[in-house]
Amino acid sequence: MGPTQAIAKLVASTDAVPSRTVHEAKRTLINLLGVALAAAHDQPAEVLVRWAEAEGCAPQAAVIGRTLRTSLSNAALLNAYLAHLHDYDDTHFPTVLHPSAPVWPAVLASAEALHLSGKATLAAFVLGAETACRLALSVHPWHYDQGWHITGTAGVFGAAAGVGRALDLNAEELTNALGIAGTQASGVREMFGTDAKALHPAKASSNGLQAAFLAQAGFSGPDDIIGGRRGFWAVLSPDGHSETALLDDLGERWELDNNGLKPYANGVVAHPIQDAVISLRNAHHLRPAQITRIAARVHPLVLELMDRPLPRRGLEGKFSYQHCAAAALVDGAGHDAQFTDARVSDPTIASVRSRVSATVDPSLGEDEAYVTIALDNGQTLAQHVTHATGSPANPMTDAALEEKYRLLASDVLPPGQAERLLEAVWRMDEADDVVGVTMLMAP
Amino acid sequence: MGPTQAIAKLVASTDAVPSRTVHEAKRTLINLLGVALAAAHDQPAEVLVRWAEAEGCAPQAAVIGRTLRTSLSNAALLNAYLAHLHDYDDTHFPTVLHPSAPVWPAVLASAEALHLSGKATLAAFVLGAETACRLALSVHPWHYDQGWHITGTAGVFGAAAGVGRALDLNAEELTNALGIAGTQASGVREMFGTDAKALHPAKASSNGLQAAFLAQAGFSGPDDIIGGRRGFWAVLSPDGHSETALLDDLGERWELDNNGLKPYANGVVAHPIQDAVISLRNAHHLRPAQITRIAARVHPLVLELMDRPLPRRGLEGKFSYQHCAAAALVDGAGHDAQFTDARVSDPTIASVRSRVSATVDPSLGEDEAYVTIALDNGQTLAQHVTHATGSPANPMTDAALEEKYRLLASDVLPPGQAERLLEAVWRMDEADDVVGVTMLMAP
Repeated sequence: MGPTQAIAKLVASTDAVPSRTVHEAKRTLINLLGVALAAAHDQPAEVLVRWAEAEGCAPQAAVIGRTLRTSLSNAALLNAYLAHLHDYDDTHFPTVLHPSAPVWPAVLASAEALHLSGKATLAAFVLGAETACRLALSVHPWHYDQGWHITGTAGVFGAAAGVGRALDLNAEELTNALGIAGTQASGVREMFGTDAKALHPAKASSNGLQAAFLAQAGFSGPDDIIGGRRGFWAVLSPDGHSETALLDDLGERWELDNNGLKPYANGVVAHPIQDAVISLRNAHHLRPAQITRIAARVHPLVLELMDRPLPRRGLEGKFSYQHCAAAALVDGAGHDAQFTDARVSDPTIASVRSRVSATVDPSLGEDEAYVTIALDNGQTLAQHVTHATGSPANPMTDAALEEKYRLLASDVLPPGQAERLLEAVWRMDEADDVVGVTMLMAP
Repeated sequence: MGPTQAIAKLVASTDAVPSRTVHEAKRTLINLLGVALAAAHDQPAEVLVRWAEAEGCAPQAAVIGRTLRTSLSNAALLNAYLAHLHDYDDTHFPTVLHPSAPVWPAVLASAEALHLSGKATLAAFVLGAETACRLALSVHPWHYDQGWHITGTAGVFGAAAGVGRALDLNAEELTNALGIAGTQASGVREMFGTDAKALHPAKASSNGLQAAFLAQAGFSGPDDIIGGRRGFWAVLSPDGHSETALLDDLGERWELDNNGLKPYANGVVAHPIQDAVISLRNAHHLRPAQITRIAARVHPLVLELMDRPLPRRGLEGKFSYQHCAAAALVDGAGHDAQFTDARVSDPTIASVRSRVSATVDPSLGEDEAYVTIALDNGQTLAQHVTHATGSPANPMTDAALEEKYRLLASDVLPPGQAERLLEAVWRMDEADDVVGVTMLMAP
């Protein structure tokens, strides 16, 4: 049995998902709904919504935070775009993959159309996320290092697996679905800081959904998209891959256990810096004018991904560790409000930003940082963050998640509806029809 | 000016395309319409048509050979799928890219909706095809050798450029369009022999079209998808690229001059073998029972791409040089009829097929072969093909193209309509509205 068939078998035949993992799946959905609602009226989202309107498709599935109903593939496209646009969605820490953005929207759209139960919908998501995370693990770090945006490339496999499960495909059909989806794996890191970055999970979600429906209708793919001679490993990760990472303990441990929810709306590798800066700021009541230097010692990915001393607009600020640290110092936060074009141009933040620097220490974890802040009175403050808030070792509590969700969702939905949606997700595994959730996503 | 901007400038600002190249563009469209009409009711095409019907989109653009009208992106998807399904579309010989399948359907769908003139539509195709071919040249052979199906990966750039031209985007908007499209570059060669292979140009066409419309609406991409640090060259062709091949004599020579039309409905690298076998068969009135051996000396790509001694079904037969040679001997042809599941299982063909072999000679051209046929009377016949029929050095005549088109198209459209469509394409540059062509594509 090749690696693709092993994954297909897991997705087709797993009966029981542990209740802890089901709870984690609900948490990722609450988080996704909050961040997508907050993004629902952003300018590039408006462009995509108008695109879908121009396509004039049948009103089959809900779009988060919008009155538009559209086809399954366009609903997956739009919802995944909204889920990732603010870079505020969940992160699979071992691989920096964002599993929910590509997988949940595809699963939700198909589950809504199929009138699946909440329990079946949650299982489909868990298996889709497991597929994406396992594939990501199998090519990490070579694939990401080459310049691939793993949320797009591994995400399309996850969306196909999740929808394939929702459609109750057998292992052979799932193998075809993974092949049809996997050959569309795409998304390069050159898009970071542009409107096109969130298009990666959007297309992954839409393409993965379509692949599962095509496979159901008898459309053929290859026997082994993952391990085949001209397949995913060979072509998209020529520098290395690990079959062990893909298959070890498959169905026994679940990668959602290594997933984290973000307290800050920016690239996850800067989070330990922000934790440290906010902690020192609050403890010492720091004001911008006092700061002469903020110096961080960090994991190498911080400089690889987020070294942008002069961000020009909000989206670039999300990939500037300098801006993240400066905004943390000035505002004490890293919410959407810290990543507007105006906030990136703010002279006080810009002034602090010019005093932020970082050096690399490969011995540190990705959720770890040492930060020192030098003050104009000669004093130097230091803080060591071992595990950033929202990392698997220091997870966001359910209460903190609800607070984040309410902050993001409350203004977008009519009064009371955000609370009803939250409640519907927490009780999703009791619902006979997932429409009880999806009907509350739109105003 | 980076490489992406140079291409964007060409597409935005070229005023005059040589009349020879415009004529070649018409030839590629006639060829595409013929092969797409012949494929319009194949089983996997039916699956895609049903998919598009289920999406329920607005009837904005024609689908070749079908009564369904659908959205622009779904029309591009379906028409590109039909164009490539039989592997009978045109080939850019220096790169094995099929430029028409991804580019024409995107250009046609947008031109139909925009009511473009025939002349403007032809120019949009030429510039889209030039973009795809130039990008392909810039990464050949490294990119294809790594396992990428270049028709998908370079095709999406061509579709975006062609539609961007149809939309009259400026160079900056085109740079965004190429970025949004280029990050979706995908398609691995593991799909060869499955229903999913033709999905590569299909998605390239649809995604490229969407990228151009998104860019028109202000959606942003990066400054340089082609040459950027994490862009196309770096990520999808790490073993090498050539900026010279991309940009040399840009706008002065046209790559459609290096494009060929296929006389046989299978992988182009087997064509010189088929020319030789058919020539010897006809000259010596050969019968299957006489044959003890067919031996070919060929370009290395024949074995790389088409070494399949035991094809199991029609699609695999198209990628089996052994089957192509055997069918050429038995039937004297390589049309669709030679690549049905039944013909691949035919005992006479299978018997000849088992006697076909090939050896590699790297000194040969891709359109060249030496073939010997050994007979049961001890005689050995030999034939050297220097340039296969349909190669740039030995192009198919307009008359032969019309014959191929009629053979493929006549049964699919109502009596007389195939001729009217042919005439409309030959006179396309005089048409005020391309709808005069597109309305004739469907019955």
